[in-house]
Amino acid sequence: MNKRLIDAAMGRIPADLVLKNGVIADVFTGRFIPCDVLVKDGYICGLGQYDCDNSIDVSGKFILPGLIDAHLHIESSMVTPPQYARTVVPHGVTTIIADPHEITNVCGEAGLEFMKKSAEGLPLDIKYMLPSCVPAAPFEHSGAVLTAEDTRRMADDYFGIGEMMNYPGIISGDSEVLGKLAEGKMLDGHAPGLAGQKLDAYINAGIKTDHECSEIFEMLEKIGKGMYIALREGTLSKDFRRLIYGVNSYTFRRCMLCTDDRSVAEILKDGTIDYIVKSAVQLGVEPIMAISMGSVCAAACYGLNDRGAVAPGYLADLLIIDTPHDFNIEAVFKRGVKVAENGKALFDVPACDASAVTNTVHLPRLTAEFFRHEPPEEFTAISLVPDSIITRKTTARRGDRLSKVCVIERHHGTGSKGFGYVTNYGIKNGAIASSVGHDSHNITVIGDNDADMAAAVNALGQSGGICVVSGGEVRSLLELEIAGLMTERGAEYVSATHEELMIAARALGVTESVDPFLSLAFLPLPVIPEIRVTDSGLFDVEAFSFI
Amino acid sequence: MNKRLIDAAMGRIPADLVLKNGVIADVFTGRFIPCDVLVKDGYICGLGQYDCDNSIDVSGKFILPGLIDAHLHIESSMVTPPQYARTVVPHGVTTIIADPHEITNVCGEAGLEFMKKSAEGLPLDIKYMLPSCVPAAPFEHSGAVLTAEDTRRMADDYFGIGEMMNYPGIISGDSEVLGKLAEGKMLDGHAPGLAGQKLDAYINAGIKTDHECSEIFEMLEKIGKGMYIALREGTLSKDFRRLIYGVNSYTFRRCMLCTDDRSVAEILKDGTIDYIVKSAVQLGVEPIMAISMGSVCAAACYGLNDRGAVAPGYLADLLIIDTPHDFNIEAVFKRGVKVAENGKALFDVPACDASAVTNTVHLPRLTAEFFRHEPPEEFTAISLVPDSIITRKTTARRGDRLSKVCVIERHHGTGSKGFGYVTNYGIKNGAIASSVGHDSHNITVIGDNDADMAAAVNALGQSGGICVVSGGEVRSLLELEIAGLMTERGAEYVSATHEELMIAARALGVTESVDPFLSLAFLPLPVIPEIRVTDSGLFDVEAFSFI
Repeated sequence: MNKRLIDAAMGRIPADLVLKNGVIADVFTGRFIPCDVLVKDGYICGLGQYDCDNSIDVSGKFILPGLIDAHLHIESSMVTPPQYARTVVPHGVTTIIADPHEITNVCGEAGLEFMKKSAEGLPLDIKYMLPSCVPAAPFEHSGAVLTAEDTRRMADDYFGIGEMMNYPGIISGDSEVLGKLAEGKMLDGHAPGLAGQKLDAYINAGIKTDHECSEIFEMLEKIGKGMYIALREGTLSKDFRRLIYGVNSYTFRRCMLCTDDRSVAEILKDGTIDYIVKSAVQLGVEPIMAISMGSVCAAACYGLNDRGAVAPGYLADLLIIDTPHDFNIEAVFKRGVKVAENGKALFDVPACDASAVTNTVHLPRLTAEFFRHEPPEEFTAISLVPDSIITRKTTARRGDRLSKVCVIERHHGTGSKGFGYVTNYGIKNGAIASSVGHDSHNITVIGDNDADMAAAVNALGQSGGICVVSGGEVRSLLELEIAGLMTERGAEYVSATHEELMIAARALGVTESVDPFLSLAFLPLPVIPEIRVTDSGLFDVEAFSFI
Repeated sequence: MNKRLIDAAMGRIPADLVLKNGVIADVFTGRFIPCDVLVKDGYICGLGQYDCDNSIDVSGKFILPGLIDAHLHIESSMVTPPQYARTVVPHGVTTIIADPHEITNVCGEAGLEFMKKSAEGLPLDIKYMLPSCVPAAPFEHSGAVLTAEDTRRMADDYFGIGEMMNYPGIISGDSEVLGKLAEGKMLDGHAPGLAGQKLDAYINAGIKTDHECSEIFEMLEKIGKGMYIALREGTLSKDFRRLIYGVNSYTFRRCMLCTDDRSVAEILKDGTIDYIVKSAVQLGVEPIMAISMGSVCAAACYGLNDRGAVAPGYLADLLIIDTPHDFNIEAVFKRGVKVAENGKALFDVPACDASAVTNTVHLPRLTAEFFRHEPPEEFTAISLVPDSIITRKTTARRGDRLSKVCVIERHHGTGSKGFGYVTNYGIKNGAIASSVGHDSHNITVIGDNDADMAAAVNALGQSGGICVVSGGEVRSLLELEIAGLMTERGAEYVSATHEELMIAARALGVTESVDPFLSLAFLPLPVIPEIRVTDSGLFDVEAFSFI
């Protein structure tokens, strides 16, 4: 209870700001209502007819609640939390639920600390979930391990428990897995395709959300059984346009919007949650419904009762837009302070101490010798599926035109490595190396000759990043000095350099239907069908065993 | 997280119960879905196709979540919490939010303790709010006072803070009043007619609910500003039928149902929340919407995330009904146990120790002398408004046919009393006395002769209750031995005796358009227009001062 808000509403003390003559989106009654919005101490304290010395005229504009991204991994943007804030706040995002799963797999608790510290003081509320799956699977070597005991010890310092990807562990009643579901905390889910009895079992564990639906019937079953569903529009996974037709006057209250993994290039170009809200409206969803999914519905799911609506007592996290259809964001207010205008952030971000999360690539200088590996006469190879991260098993023979891939343990210098062969990557006279390799983020390198593969890995140095090498020469390099996953340099650097990388990769002949870097980044993830390669070897996901 | 629910869903351990072949009301997707409901340890653990040794066939029936009464005073039923449970559970009510405001005004903390103790072990979850207005107003003498300091000390033992009726105190920023709004607790409101700037100020105090709306525009403003609105169908105040037309696909999520004050006679005859849900459907509200307002919407408002829906992990509080239109409740399950069938409770209630809350009427034996009082030649009298608790000021002259009313302080034996005259009550040759007199519950007696007034008060003894006396003889007596407000005898006794009282009152000529007992019970309440009489004298509500 804030007496100053009462006093400001009654005019006994001056308010801080009034937005005059706008039209608010009322997510509770479903109406657009012309009125003034009075702000004090970062909160909305009045709706109606109000005046204040600090008055901004927003005649003809719409006033919306700040947007909420219900689930994402900041690391996938390749920029640090402060730089991420500078990128998304101009798009109207004022609160995010972030799972720092990637950096934790590399740096453990030091990674979590960095993410929290660097988020302090930003005009973006970052609610961190404690990652539940570090490592994601026992078939690769990650930089750190969080046990059930660790999770229980640390849970109170986090907003909740991050997406529980190990649904087989939940369903089978595995005590180490169940032990991570801290009592009384918000529990995020990850249950692609789960249905019926198994879904019931998963929900019985207390898991409240899912962002992995790809079909409407799946979404409706999960909502009906009490889950909140985050409709996703990431860079890789774009489910929102299929699921939107499952949104109606009942279900929308249990729907939220999320990006999960979205590149800064895509955010700079199209936007983020603002883009999803706009697209929903353009696809025929009632504007207040679309706005609600991007704000109050996520707030309700996560118990964030102080935000998500333009109402007295709510945080003054507000967007000024032209229309819900065109969704041009003219200004963004965070706690009553204007923090972005016409797409530009109005705040600078301080440098943060990253010493505990830099120089995370622990490898000696490699030679071509390191990559000497010959397949047998006939062997199982990896076939990339166009525009997807799914792979297929295929049979190949020595002498077929294949790209060699190697995953090298990079956290503890164990020298562990695994080889595989990819049929349709298409690289010629070069190699591409990356320290982004889900979810353990070992070094993954692909090429058609051992010398360039060595040169590419060496070029990453201790920092990490992504590089394209040809003829022993670095053609392009994106430095990702934070855990080998992110950079402090900001979205423009990442976006521009990524474009250069792409040009360099295509110049080496990488197949047009394949994303040279994302396909590489997901080659080691042993929980996505059908065949993967980790630092421990080639892995058959269906059989759940090494080949 | 309950591993046993996971194991039961997966069939690794036996479940406790399956309801086979019913149709569930899915409050999340707005559909009726045919499926089995599997129960373990009092929770729903599966929805779909399930089997279990203990199987109940509910073919062709609807399965609904247990109903929630969002706001009420048990004392208004005149029965104790256990007897109240026996009355409402057969009507499908499995959770109530109760404000023990009345008994606390009589007995203070002992009253609260009695309410909590007597609610233990019932198949009705009673969530008690700590009353915020004890006394309701400083213009009468109550049995107890709860200060802001008391409230802060006790708040943690309660579900929230009960309806804050003192809205002028909130709006003016009175520190004693604001001091009662414990940080972090659910705060119930009471703000009839409040709008605009004053409503904003009231909401800024953190107050989340209101059950006093009487018009749709009022309801929409409050919902739009973030409140949850309880649509009320009490015995006195029946707002639901007007407000229901403000319910739509957006607003229903912020609407709940409540009875506030409802007599057991009315509950036995028509029902309670079940009656409101049924009536809403019959008035054209979508059945799932009506059911939602009576269940999941109230649960959401009060953060009761374990109930209000038929879904895995939710409490197995379930109703079996014929159709949402006819709403005949065939069985009620509380935590998976059948507790009512075809209108009958299947449980007995233990006697509870009421010694601290009985014998609360502290008056000597009175004689006619005590009531000797003559009005001046011309004076202000009270005119009752038919079918309402509102009163009007009127001018009367000595010799007009009036009923004399006297309110006598009964808690501390101070001898404080106040007189007034009522123009259109109509009693002849008798008197009616009551220990129910809102909100301080002093003895209120009305009659046309002093001897019968004394006899009526004396007939209440130390216990309290309501009685009708004529010619010095008790014609009918309802004993209310708990705080002079409630009885352990049960709903049938109260209902039958109340009927006798009514016949006796009408026989003495009490005007047909006046409820002899309710009009008496509200004569002392100095916050309802226009004129009242308390133990401190005649009170002008508009002028907020004694006459």
